[in-house]
Amino acid sequence: MSSEFRERGCQGRGCVRYIEIEKPVLGNNTADAQRLEQALIRELGKEGDTQGVKIALHLLKTLPARLRTWDYKARAVVFKDRHSWRLVELLPPNLMDAGLPEPGCPESGPARPVLGAAIDLGTTRVVIQLLDLESCKTLGEIGFDNPQVVIGPDVLARIHYSHKPGGLDQLQRLLVDGVNDNLNKLCRENGCALDDIYLVTGAGNTAMTHLFLGIEAFEIIREPYIPCVNIPDTLKAREVGLAINGQGLLFLFPNIGSYFGGDLVAGILFADLDKKQDPCLMVDVGTNAEIVVGSRDWLIACAGAAGPALEGGISKMGMTAGPGVIDTVMIDPLTRKVEIHTIDEKPPVGICGSGMIDLAAALFLSGMIDIRGKFSRQACGDRLKEIEEILSFVLVDKENSGTGGDIALSQVDLNSLTSSKAAMYTILEVIVKNTAGLEFEDLETFYVAGTFGSFINPVSAISIGMLPDIDRSRFKVLGNSSLGGAALLLLDPSAFDRIMEIRRSITYIELNVNQEFMNMFSGAKFYPHTDRSRFPSVSLEFI
Amino acid sequence: MSSEFRERGCQGRGCVRYIEIEKPVLGNNTADAQRLEQALIRELGKEGDTQGVKIALHLLKTLPARLRTWDYKARAVVFKDRHSWRLVELLPPNLMDAGLPEPGCPESGPARPVLGAAIDLGTTRVVIQLLDLESCKTLGEIGFDNPQVVIGPDVLARIHYSHKPGGLDQLQRLLVDGVNDNLNKLCRENGCALDDIYLVTGAGNTAMTHLFLGIEAFEIIREPYIPCVNIPDTLKAREVGLAINGQGLLFLFPNIGSYFGGDLVAGILFADLDKKQDPCLMVDVGTNAEIVVGSRDWLIACAGAAGPALEGGISKMGMTAGPGVIDTVMIDPLTRKVEIHTIDEKPPVGICGSGMIDLAAALFLSGMIDIRGKFSRQACGDRLKEIEEILSFVLVDKENSGTGGDIALSQVDLNSLTSSKAAMYTILEVIVKNTAGLEFEDLETFYVAGTFGSFINPVSAISIGMLPDIDRSRFKVLGNSSLGGAALLLLDPSAFDRIMEIRRSITYIELNVNQEFMNMFSGAKFYPHTDRSRFPSVSLEFI
Repeated sequence: MSSEFRERGCQGRGCVRYIEIEKPVLGNNTADAQRLEQALIRELGKEGDTQGVKIALHLLKTLPARLRTWDYKARAVVFKDRHSWRLVELLPPNLMDAGLPEPGCPESGPARPVLGAAIDLGTTRVVIQLLDLESCKTLGEIGFDNPQVVIGPDVLARIHYSHKPGGLDQLQRLLVDGVNDNLNKLCRENGCALDDIYLVTGAGNTAMTHLFLGIEAFEIIREPYIPCVNIPDTLKAREVGLAINGQGLLFLFPNIGSYFGGDLVAGILFADLDKKQDPCLMVDVGTNAEIVVGSRDWLIACAGAAGPALEGGISKMGMTAGPGVIDTVMIDPLTRKVEIHTIDEKPPVGICGSGMIDLAAALFLSGMIDIRGKFSRQACGDRLKEIEEILSFVLVDKENSGTGGDIALSQVDLNSLTSSKAAMYTILEVIVKNTAGLEFEDLETFYVAGTFGSFINPVSAISIGMLPDIDRSRFKVLGNSSLGGAALLLLDPSAFDRIMEIRRSITYIELNVNQEFMNMFSGAKFYPHTDRSRFPSVSLEFI
Repeated sequence: MSSEFRERGCQGRGCVRYIEIEKPVLGNNTADAQRLEQALIRELGKEGDTQGVKIALHLLKTLPARLRTWDYKARAVVFKDRHSWRLVELLPPNLMDAGLPEPGCPESGPARPVLGAAIDLGTTRVVIQLLDLESCKTLGEIGFDNPQVVIGPDVLARIHYSHKPGGLDQLQRLLVDGVNDNLNKLCRENGCALDDIYLVTGAGNTAMTHLFLGIEAFEIIREPYIPCVNIPDTLKAREVGLAINGQGLLFLFPNIGSYFGGDLVAGILFADLDKKQDPCLMVDVGTNAEIVVGSRDWLIACAGAAGPALEGGISKMGMTAGPGVIDTVMIDPLTRKVEIHTIDEKPPVGICGSGMIDLAAALFLSGMIDIRGKFSRQACGDRLKEIEEILSFVLVDKENSGTGGDIALSQVDLNSLTSSKAAMYTILEVIVKNTAGLEFEDLETFYVAGTFGSFINPVSAISIGMLPDIDRSRFKVLGNSSLGGAALLLLDPSAFDRIMEIRRSITYIELNVNQEFMNMFSGAKFYPHTDRSRFPSVSLEFI
């Protein structure tokens, strides 16, 4: 990913710019700050000086001496803001190349890097990427469980807690401390200091964004579901307690509403959806399926509860990825021999969402579940048994498992998966066909985002009728697109305008679960679908 | 002045606005902050939402609860910025009228006023005006000697001192402490608190502005005379140590260059020069004479050392206004009887600049000094005597003075005054005739600004050829125009755009003291001028 960043983000468009300032002469008595501003405006390609570049007071205080010592050359750390560009720091001109100490310079010393951090503020997991803003290289990445989990596993519980006296502060503190600790770890691993970090960008859902900023979030979950803020201003990072450079800034991606967060806006940015000539689709599968379809001309978004069966905790054996977790399942349709692969090739302990999709697809394609999603006693043979009075398919028996018990998929689990895949397909159908007026074939690219999404095998997902039957080459895995979008902004601050434009131009559709939706949903509960002509490429020879 | 402010500044255009925010409904899930912003944009008459209104984080934190408690009505304290409008504070809606405590409101309590302070940051004297930003009334005014005087009497000495280690901080501290002490006094006198002050505007010369902000000022006095900053950003007042409300803002007027400060920009704003259809002129007479001529279409400015003889310390008997100081002199041309008036009608102790102009005019019109500005021994009679070997005119003898000594004008003092009045006239001639291509008669209004200027009798100044011979009704005394401009911005924040436009449109002329200037100057050293036809209204019948 970092080489892609380099290509996209660098080329002198990053947050660190080398500038040369016009020298003062008797005929032009323009002040130092205004000549600096003119140089920045030239560099940043902004016209007019009505708004100018915001230069903080601390930078002015010693500006005359610094400009004269540096012979009117400098490196400027800049960031774009909703209101103007901002000069975050001004550094000696020639550390970029050599890192030599500056003789006679008031701020000479060993060369320090200029860093930025991008954060994916997930409800369950937080991921931070540390970037060198001059080389545009990713230095490292760290992930950790959202420390707010101790308050509650989901957004709802946390928002309720935030409404209690002191609750909001506590939630903010937990998350900010976690970010600080992990930023510190990342810095130590890379031989740099928190003080070297000048910019932090973050993307999260609307609730997480509010809780990170310490802003009242209660109205998000109460009718009519109103966030406190759609577009958080760029802040001094210190204002929320981030322990980075004292002048450093924090920007959190704006949201569209309570149920369409900055993480998705970051995803759209990362996928370049807003630049596409032909319509594309991006789906982020988590507890909700969030879908955006569109191009540079229009963007439509919708969110719906789609995937409860696909993540750990819902299905009895479903769990998130980790050592020993089954992530791939293959069944030979002829011999019905089952092959599995586990993460780190450890003894199997469970199955993750993508493994479950593989399993369902393999069972279906080998005739072991029927088109209604029910186990076939005949085809499954002795792998079927009653566990706690529920018919279950034993994938790994207790002799071979890493848990000492059978690893099995029950009919109840399978029914949940069937509902989920049907909901996903129906939502895709509603947004693509009914709302955007397109056919699935019109989609140039089908992006699958999210950590979970990155493991889905599109062939399996199509086989069970979860994803539409289009050419496999059109599916692209985006990975953590929320983190990717946040990092992109650090490497190309002018992307700020795209973010604001995405927010402005997007149409958010509330999913209307009416009779028509329920009819479509019923049809999609079959494998792959009640209307087989929609899945011509799914081979049904063994069914 | 305050009634003029009311007329100009109020009419719902001040810094406190009553707003009603659209209530949220299921069909419109726009965030609270963005609906607040929309209400502010409607109120402030700004188009588009590209820039929007900057809402500080602390205001967001409890915004949802406050809006719902206040039924989506509020008073907003706003200020215009170079980059956008800024929301400084949000207050309950109905304190404006009643001052009743707000039942159930998280911030209920006794009604507090919303105040602003305007400051004239003079080198010698600082004046502060306290204003109620809701009623647009001036509550009080206080003046005090600039505490930096202990470091040095003039800008030059202070800038040299600022270049020493710790010097800049010390100078800033002195001035800021002085402002805080006097703000506190003003507040106590008016039964309010420093915390009630949300906005501070200040205007001073370029050096004073730098020293107040703690910005390196050394390059101002060193060729090529470059300020560090022309346009200081609006700052959190706390950033420079002002002890007002923690969220309060500070704006200092921008300068045009090292020798054309924000005080003059404030003066232009206060005189409405930038709105005039016909050309007008404003002169601010202090140690320098600073002159601006122009209209809504163009503005030309120039500054030159004009008045050294006009202020205390230069002339032996010259002093600034105070009790016992002679401020008016009349001499009957027939009897040559001298009449004086002193401030507070105390026994005479000296003469101020305006009194000296009166004296010179009276002496000239009664034939006691000749057209070359020399005492006539014959006409002066026994009022002339040698004091310390210099021929001097005794205005008040020691028997009648409050000092025990003679109060006299020496030929040396008179020569200085002659030079000063000649310099002033020549500069006026250069800028009006040579630069702007106008005649003095083309000037619709001739504004005289500055504390010193407010005491000048235009008839006397014309009689000695200091000011041009135009209709007396065209002269208008502005008073402290620097303070007036600063206060105006508090009462009409949209004046910010005018300030920026004044700065942009003004042409600053360096006075070129060449042979032509020297020739003009020589002609102006006569009383009233070597070319008598320029002063047709000055009666010369007794000369």
